[in-house]
Amino acid sequence: MLAEELGSLEPAERVELDAVRLPTAEPVPEPVIAAAGGAQAVETGTESRLRHAAGKSYPDLVRVRSGRPAGAPDAVLVPRSAESVAATLRACAGERVAVVPFGGGTSVVGGVEPARGSFERLLALDLAAMRAVSVDERSQTATLGPGLRGPEAEAELNRRGYTIGHFPQSFPYATIGGFAATRSAGQASSGYGRFDELVTAITMQTPAGEMTTLETPHTAAGPALRELIVGSEGALGVITEVTVRIRPLPAARRYEGWFAAGFEEGIELARALAQRDALPDVFRLSDRDETRVSLARSGLEGLKRSALEAYLRLRGRSRGCMVICGWEGESEAVARRREVSAAVLRSGGAVPLGAAPGRAWEHGRYEGPYMRDVLLDAGVMVETLETSHTFTRIGELYEAVRTALHEAMAGEGAPGIVMCHVSHVYRDGASLYFTFLSARRAGAELEQWRAVKHAACDAIVATGGTITHHHAVGTDHAPYMRAEVGELGLEALRAVKDRLDPAGVMNPGKLLPN
Amino acid sequence: MLAEELGSLEPAERVELDAVRLPTAEPVPEPVIAAAGGAQAVETGTESRLRHAAGKSYPDLVRVRSGRPAGAPDAVLVPRSAESVAATLRACAGERVAVVPFGGGTSVVGGVEPARGSFERLLALDLAAMRAVSVDERSQTATLGPGLRGPEAEAELNRRGYTIGHFPQSFPYATIGGFAATRSAGQASSGYGRFDELVTAITMQTPAGEMTTLETPHTAAGPALRELIVGSEGALGVITEVTVRIRPLPAARRYEGWFAAGFEEGIELARALAQRDALPDVFRLSDRDETRVSLARSGLEGLKRSALEAYLRLRGRSRGCMVICGWEGESEAVARRREVSAAVLRSGGAVPLGAAPGRAWEHGRYEGPYMRDVLLDAGVMVETLETSHTFTRIGELYEAVRTALHEAMAGEGAPGIVMCHVSHVYRDGASLYFTFLSARRAGAELEQWRAVKHAACDAIVATGGTITHHHAVGTDHAPYMRAEVGELGLEALRAVKDRLDPAGVMNPGKLLPN
Repeated sequence: MLAEELGSLEPAERVELDAVRLPTAEPVPEPVIAAAGGAQAVETGTESRLRHAAGKSYPDLVRVRSGRPAGAPDAVLVPRSAESVAATLRACAGERVAVVPFGGGTSVVGGVEPARGSFERLLALDLAAMRAVSVDERSQTATLGPGLRGPEAEAELNRRGYTIGHFPQSFPYATIGGFAATRSAGQASSGYGRFDELVTAITMQTPAGEMTTLETPHTAAGPALRELIVGSEGALGVITEVTVRIRPLPAARRYEGWFAAGFEEGIELARALAQRDALPDVFRLSDRDETRVSLARSGLEGLKRSALEAYLRLRGRSRGCMVICGWEGESEAVARRREVSAAVLRSGGAVPLGAAPGRAWEHGRYEGPYMRDVLLDAGVMVETLETSHTFTRIGELYEAVRTALHEAMAGEGAPGIVMCHVSHVYRDGASLYFTFLSARRAGAELEQWRAVKHAACDAIVATGGTITHHHAVGTDHAPYMRAEVGELGLEALRAVKDRLDPAGVMNPGKLLPN
Repeated sequence: MLAEELGSLEPAERVELDAVRLPTAEPVPEPVIAAAGGAQAVETGTESRLRHAAGKSYPDLVRVRSGRPAGAPDAVLVPRSAESVAATLRACAGERVAVVPFGGGTSVVGGVEPARGSFERLLALDLAAMRAVSVDERSQTATLGPGLRGPEAEAELNRRGYTIGHFPQSFPYATIGGFAATRSAGQASSGYGRFDELVTAITMQTPAGEMTTLETPHTAAGPALRELIVGSEGALGVITEVTVRIRPLPAARRYEGWFAAGFEEGIELARALAQRDALPDVFRLSDRDETRVSLARSGLEGLKRSALEAYLRLRGRSRGCMVICGWEGESEAVARRREVSAAVLRSGGAVPLGAAPGRAWEHGRYEGPYMRDVLLDAGVMVETLETSHTFTRIGELYEAVRTALHEAMAGEGAPGIVMCHVSHVYRDGASLYFTFLSARRAGAELEQWRAVKHAACDAIVATGGTITHHHAVGTDHAPYMRAEVGELGLEALRAVKDRLDPAGVMNPGKLLPN
């Protein structure tokens, strides 16, 4: 189907690990080694350097697969404590060594790019050894080390009967520190809340010392420093501890499919659900193209594609849009809340498809990112980007970004497919998540990607959407931060950075434009 | 009853308006007058200066009633637009004139004190002329001018069928800008959310220019500048526009009384309600002393005090604690949610008292502040303070503050009454709101107040509670900000202030310690 829609594809080659050549590493200064915990906390092997050389954006994959990563850290530090992190940052500032904090390495916006800025040396600081878990069952909070990956944190909490409820697509690899540093949003964020809404207290080490917030449920004590640390993307310091609200493990889960008459009608459903306090914990609405591709992939286990299509044609929904809804919690509450949601869905013209599409979605909920490798092998450029807007302007934003992507891909000589879904719904608006594919321009992959990405970002900015709803800023969106927060907003952030990181060693090139 | 409990009281005298003598006013510099909108935007009369000379804390009332306010602005500016505010701040910075942004003047923490710092001239900047209302019904948001008082904003929204749902005790006078600048929390915040949670976009004028955030439901674009403006208490700039989430006016409201076996048991009820998603929109739990005083005041309309006491004795609840619960929304949802809450309350040992206590609370919900005048006339020192903590430590915090208040009042020679209630409940903890009364030390009111206030604040800090849950920092809590956010946190805030207000003219002495 892809070949049919995207035109002829030229399969790509992958370079094997042995053939990758990294730039020669600068030696790590002695004071930095000592601060990090001695030689056993410093990794200098090729594989470790390569694993910390890039995140997971399309340009990252293109570069790494070609054996030509954009660069690599000179070494990887693996400190074991907050004190060690603090000492390491002081030493790096003193020695003028750039530091890239590293969690799961799942950034899709260049957030862990080994960009040296004006520095000759750069180290990745991997939080993998800091994985403490402490649970306050009475207050239903957990204090977590930054290096815990999603599944490990969940396993520790599940053992005690709790969950964070935070399940982004990066969940299998991404870490607690990364969730906080990037304002991650999970697939069930409509129910459990975004990660930034779950954080009750946070501690960050900076070259200038420690910043920490009190663990109280709320405060009116001035501007929220918690909200300055959350989302700081390693550009201000390294998050070394995060306290989050947890919930009892849900006794029941119910996921199911619905069909909306169209994307616009589907957004109206989202609005009605949110504004009538009837929002499921998971709500995902695919536009027509995403629905079409999903059905073509026949991802709906147990539901024959031809039977579904016949059924939908019969109901006059042949051009409709797939909706996945999920409710979690105590059995009775799930049943009750599902009733309330279903009434709203029905009155908005949606048609129930039963549990099969829900199961299919649940089964594949973390698979999207892996499919990119298959597509890259086949010669496809595939990338995603996301934004959000109020219900009043979300339709306009959808059309603007979709058009910009189509035009830019065609302009690059390879007309493509644009798919979109809504996955995070609020009372006042929702997110839009775009996936776009076209035939790769062999040898000019990065130029092609850049042209398409910039066209989409320009369309977002022109329509007043946010440059990122949950992927964060990294290097890719830094040029758009001026449009996002204004010149004085940038200046305020720079003033904070100058105070916490006067030498400018923290994650150069991320978050703030040069 | 008070005379019995507090010992002999010496009634206080009040000075009439005509007898108040204010310091001679410095002339307002010409460029400031021009920027503010000309002579008609500048008030220099005694009454206007006096009205802007203080907030509503106990020290404020003591000083103003004695005819000796701590000072007064040289004049009051009433600009009509954001552009005029921006120009005024630039002019004030250029002329080295301090500026106190002024909304409803209801601060109880010295937030509008005319403290000159190192400046010879000081002006109050009253937002009363900026009261625009614009409603986006589709996104259920309203963009509001900062000078709108609570009732005016609600009336405008109610006309269109909406409400903000923000009803703090200061509601009759306090303004939208003040709610945002101080992170206000209302009596129904458990249901509608704190004011800071309702803000989706905000604009602030500073001496260095305008800061504004995009109106999108959520973003991952770095540290949240919205959360830097919210809570800034006029120390960074003047908030000139606030966009908040609104809700349909509730079709039904149900308030009622319950009786918990004790305060600790009542806090357990709050915890169970919050953690089982069964929290009413209003939840207020009084401790035994507050319950005792409330019953003595016989505030329970339609409920004979003696009958209630007999009833409670019969149920073994003679030393119990009053709980007010309220649910708002669609009739069916109110009934359903009330059922769920009631089941949790009953299983936690609470006894229903019916609608009368709910009506009594509703009737008097904004009256508390006015009673202070009566008490001051009678010779009573009366003040409130508030904090919050996790459920794990809230009991410890309650005992610590209560003991500190009792000991400090006794230490000042006038043993007093300490009452407390929980009024804001979260999944991980709750607020504590203390009211304390003792016989006023005539002629040494401020010293007496200071000793008691400091003892309570020290107890809060020692127990890890927040120095303020919803009254904000002002001048009273500024000395405790170091304990709240740490030295580096303070430095980060100072870095922002230095960038936005390099001359330091914005609200001197508030928020940050000297």
